[in-house]
Amino acid sequence: MNVELVNTGTELLLGDTINTNAAWIGQRLAALGVQVARQTIVPDGAVIRTAIAEAAQRADVVLVSGGLGPTNDDLTRESTAALLNLDMELDAGVMQHLEAYFAKRGKPVSAATQRQAMVPRGASVLPNAFGTAPGLYFPAELSAALGWNAHIFLLPGPPRELKPMVESEVETRLRQWLPDGASRRVLYLKVTGVGESDIVEAVEKQLEAIPGLDLGYCIRNGDVDVRLAGPQAAVDAAADVVRGALGDCIVSEDRRIIEEVVVQLLAERGQWLSTAESCTGGTIANRITDVSGASRVFGHGWVTYANEAKHQHLGVPMELIETHGAVSEEVARAMAEGALKNSGADHALSVTGIAGPTGGTPEKPVGTVWIALASKGAETWAIKRFSPGSRDRFKLLTSQAALDLLRRRLLGIGVR
Amino acid sequence: MNVELVNTGTELLLGDTINTNAAWIGQRLAALGVQVARQTIVPDGAVIRTAIAEAAQRADVVLVSGGLGPTNDDLTRESTAALLNLDMELDAGVMQHLEAYFAKRGKPVSAATQRQAMVPRGASVLPNAFGTAPGLYFPAELSAALGWNAHIFLLPGPPRELKPMVESEVETRLRQWLPDGASRRVLYLKVTGVGESDIVEAVEKQLEAIPGLDLGYCIRNGDVDVRLAGPQAAVDAAADVVRGALGDCIVSEDRRIIEEVVVQLLAERGQWLSTAESCTGGTIANRITDVSGASRVFGHGWVTYANEAKHQHLGVPMELIETHGAVSEEVARAMAEGALKNSGADHALSVTGIAGPTGGTPEKPVGTVWIALASKGAETWAIKRFSPGSRDRFKLLTSQAALDLLRRRLLGIGVR
Repeated sequence: MNVELVNTGTELLLGDTINTNAAWIGQRLAALGVQVARQTIVPDGAVIRTAIAEAAQRADVVLVSGGLGPTNDDLTRESTAALLNLDMELDAGVMQHLEAYFAKRGKPVSAATQRQAMVPRGASVLPNAFGTAPGLYFPAELSAALGWNAHIFLLPGPPRELKPMVESEVETRLRQWLPDGASRRVLYLKVTGVGESDIVEAVEKQLEAIPGLDLGYCIRNGDVDVRLAGPQAAVDAAADVVRGALGDCIVSEDRRIIEEVVVQLLAERGQWLSTAESCTGGTIANRITDVSGASRVFGHGWVTYANEAKHQHLGVPMELIETHGAVSEEVARAMAEGALKNSGADHALSVTGIAGPTGGTPEKPVGTVWIALASKGAETWAIKRFSPGSRDRFKLLTSQAALDLLRRRLLGIGVR
Repeated sequence: MNVELVNTGTELLLGDTINTNAAWIGQRLAALGVQVARQTIVPDGAVIRTAIAEAAQRADVVLVSGGLGPTNDDLTRESTAALLNLDMELDAGVMQHLEAYFAKRGKPVSAATQRQAMVPRGASVLPNAFGTAPGLYFPAELSAALGWNAHIFLLPGPPRELKPMVESEVETRLRQWLPDGASRRVLYLKVTGVGESDIVEAVEKQLEAIPGLDLGYCIRNGDVDVRLAGPQAAVDAAADVVRGALGDCIVSEDRRIIEEVVVQLLAERGQWLSTAESCTGGTIANRITDVSGASRVFGHGWVTYANEAKHQHLGVPMELIETHGAVSEEVARAMAEGALKNSGADHALSVTGIAGPTGGTPEKPVGTVWIALASKGAETWAIKRFSPGSRDRFKLLTSQAALDLLRRRLLGIGVR
C-alpha cells in the first residue's frame, strides 16, 4: 500500500516548528508494516491543492495535516473540496460540537469558526475530542472521477489533536485495507547499555530467519528500541530471540523509559532513592522527578559540583579527593555512601566525572566518569564509563548508566 | 527566489529520525528573506532522481540532503549525475582528503568510500570539514539542456556536516544571487517572560511601519525569538522599537540562551550561585551545568523534594512548613537563605511548587510555584508564578523564571 503525507503550514517551512507529526506518523505506519512513500511540505495557500492532487495521483492513501483552523490561511478543507468538485454543506453534528465547545468556555461560535462545520458532500467527519476542527475522510470513490483511486484524510495540525485521530480513525481503516492488518502485532523492546551494532550482531541473523517479521531499530535518548512487527507468531518468536540474547538489558516492552521503570520498581518496594551528582549536575534527579509520583520514592538530592560540596554535604574526606582525585572510584563510593547516610534513603546513586570540553588529562580524558550505587544492607557497586562527545550527550549517557545500575540492583540481576 | 528542499533518507519516512535539518535550513533562509517554497522527503532509492527533477523544474535553487555516503543505498550523487547527463570523474582533491581522513584513524580508504571522490563533470566540490562525503554544487547552466534553470546543491545528511556547509557554501552563493543579499542583516532578540501575543501587542504596529523589514517570531524553550531581517537601517530601527518596549526582557541579541547569559554574568563578576530546588527537581542545576565553564560559578546544589530535606539540609524550620505549607513565600525565602548560608555562594535560587498532575488544592492548584533569590548583602526576592500544564512544561517555565530573576539581579534591573 502506497501512503503519502502532505503537511501544510508556512511555520514548518520557516523552521519555526519542527515537523514531529511526520516522524510520529512514520513510526505508527511502520508498525503496521507500511513505509511512507513520500512526504511533501507546502506553505499555507493555493499550492496545497496542487500538492494533494500530485500525491493522490501516486498514492492509495494521502494523509494531509494542517490548515483546518478558523483563520483565512486555513485552506485545506476548501482546497480539497474544490479539487474533488464537491459542494460544501453545514454539518449539524459538527456545529453542535462547536457550540458545546465554546459554551464551556463562555463564548459564542464566531462566523470564522463556523467554517469548520462545513463538510464537503460525501466526506465523513472524523471527530476531534481535543479541539474544534474535525478531521475529514474522503473515500477513494470521490477521486475516481479524476481517474485516481486515493483515500484522502484531512487531519488537524496540532499534535495533541492529530495523534488520537490517526490512532482511532486512520489506523482502524488502514488495518481493514491491509491484507494482514487485523492480525498484525507490534512490539517495542527497549534495550539499554548496548550499542545498535552490538544488538544487530547479537540477534539479526536469527531474526532474519523468522518469516513475516518486520524488524526496525530506533535510537532514542541513548537507548535502542527494537521494533518487531508482523503476525503474532512471528513477533512472539522474535521477542524470544531478543529476550534470550539481551534479556537483562531490556528496560521495558511497553515503551516506558528507564526513569519510569525505576520509579515504579522503587514504589512497588516502598523504597527511597537519593542522588549525589557532580558532572551530571542534577540530570539524574531531574529525570527521576520528571515522573509523576516521584515524590513517593525520591526526597533528597545533592549537586556537589565543587570538591568542598562533596566534603561538606556528603562527608567525603578531603584527603580522599586529594589522594585519588575527584574523579575516582574511591570518591564515587564515598559520595554514594554519604548520600545514603545523610538522606536515610534505601539507595543512593553518585556520579563524578569530566563532562568537558576542558578538564581532561591523559590518564582521565574528557568523558571519563565513575558511577556508584550504595544500598542499605548491600555492598556498594562502582562502575567506570567513558562517554566522550558533547556535554549533553555525556550527561544523557551517564545518567542512563546510573539509572540502569539501580534498575539492576532492584531486579537483582547484577552489574554488567 | 524560489528555493526547494529535497531530503532523502528512509529513516526520515520511518520516523526513526526527526527532520531537524529542514527546520534549521528553513530558519537560515528565512533570515535571508527567502521562504522555502516546498520540501519533499523521499526514501533512499530511484525516487530521489524523480524528486530532484520535479523540484528543479519549479525552483531556482534546489537543496538536496542525504545519500552521499559510502553504502549501496547512497544514490544521490549518481542520481543527479544521471539526471543531468554528466560523466563522473575521480577528483584528486577529494581523494587526498579521504586518504588524510582515514590515515588519521589508521585505516585505508575502502573501495566503497572511494566512490565519494567521484565528481560529475562541471559540478564543484563543497569541502566537508566534519566528514568524508563532500558536498556538490551544480550551477544552473548544467540543467539548461533539460530546459530548467536550477542551481542544485547536494549536501550531507548528518547535521554537524550539513550545517557548516550550508553556512559557508550555500548562503554565500545565495547572498550573491539575492537582490539585497549582500546588504541584508538579521537579528534575533530573545525575549523571556512575555508571551507571544503580548509581544505582538507591544511592538507589531510600529514594526509593520518600517519599510523592508521581515518580522518573525519563534517560540523556543519558553522564550520568544523576535527575528528582524532586512536592510541594516530597517533592522536597526526595528531593534530600537523592541528594545524600547521590552528592553529588560531581552535576554540576548546573539541567540544565547538564558543559562549561558547567566553563567557569563556570574563569571564576569567572579560570583557563585547555589540552588535549592523542590518541584523543579534539579532542572535549574542541570541547565546551569549544561554550560561549559559552569564549574567556575556553581558549586553546591540541593534537590530537597521532601520536607525533611528542606529542614535537614537547608535549615528550613519544620514549624514554618507546617504553618505556611511547603509551597509558600516563607518557605521559598527560607530555602534560598539556607542554601546561601550552607554553600557560601553569592546568590542562591530556590523553588517550591506543585508540578502536578496530583497534589493541587483549591487555594494552591497544580502549577502554583514560589521562586526566591537570596544574595549576599541584598534583600531576598520572592515571586509567585502559575504554570499549569505538563510536568515538563512546568519545570521549563519555572526554571526559566528563576534564571530570569537571577539575570535581573545581576544586571540591576529589578523584578518584573
